[in-house]
Amino acid sequence: MSEPTDLRAGDAAQSVDPAVLDELLSMRASIDNIDATLVYLLAERFKATQRVGVLKAEHQLPPADPARERWQIQRLKSLAADAQLDPEFAEKFLNFIIEEVIRHHQAISASTGSSPKVPDTRPGRPETPAGGSSAKNTAP
Amino acid sequence: MSEPTDLRAGDAAQSVDPAVLDELLSMRASIDNIDATLVYLLAERFKATQRVGVLKAEHQLPPADPARERWQIQRLKSLAADAQLDPEFAEKFLNFIIEEVIRHHQAISASTGSSPKVPDTRPGRPETPAGGSSAKNTAP
Repeated sequence: MSEPTDLRAGDAAQSVDPAVLDELLSMRASIDNIDATLVYLLAERFKATQRVGVLKAEHQLPPADPARERWQIQRLKSLAADAQLDPEFAEKFLNFIIEEVIRHHQAISASTGSSPKVPDTRPGRPETPAGGSSAKNTAP
Repeated sequence: MSEPTDLRAGDAAQSVDPAVLDELLSMRASIDNIDATLVYLLAERFKATQRVGVLKAEHQLPPADPARERWQIQRLKSLAADAQLDPEFAEKFLNFIIEEVIRHHQAISASTGSSPKVPDTRPGRPETPAGGSSAKNTAP
């Protein structure tokens, strides 16, 4: 592997007219900037859900909040429509994030050996303990 | 449903000490801002991949670029580590986005009846046509 521009060009570097390659590289640089922003934003989001999890654990609040989650889904679908993004994808994206929060949560539960205090009664959802200082939350 | 603050409070509004609810609402407002930013960023990303797809179609470039994709994954994992986000999640996230690009792409192919010009030879990946002015790309 050589320098970044070549890496960003990928296989295209070997077979493309230089002017077209320049245009492709410019677009790819924008996509890479967007991806970096997405990664840092997602990191902030998980930090925030972790803080909510701690707050809920401290005050014995149930980990799941179906009314909040319904509101989140409707809001994101509406924002997606405004952004010309497929609203169904926005819902799928939120569910993808929530699944990751649950996965982290389960890993924390397994490592601390904590047992659920308030079960999540939604269909298809694993029980999520409210206890533990590093507990995360499925519907922050 | 009543006004936004109550909606953001969800089920917690009925059972929580007002001071704790205020703190929860403040955190949820931050999460909601992050989610809105994520939605608008994702919309921009899909616009960019669509533009790359058009460029590739115009210049008969193959839709897939495995070298580019390997570079993207390594870069995102490195950025994730810097952001204290699970690097494996960053990879899963990129794959989630790529799957959506493929899904859109297949829908476009089905609606235009276009046939693949350059097959994607990566294992487990569907063939992705390079033709069509609105073609999207799996490895922009």
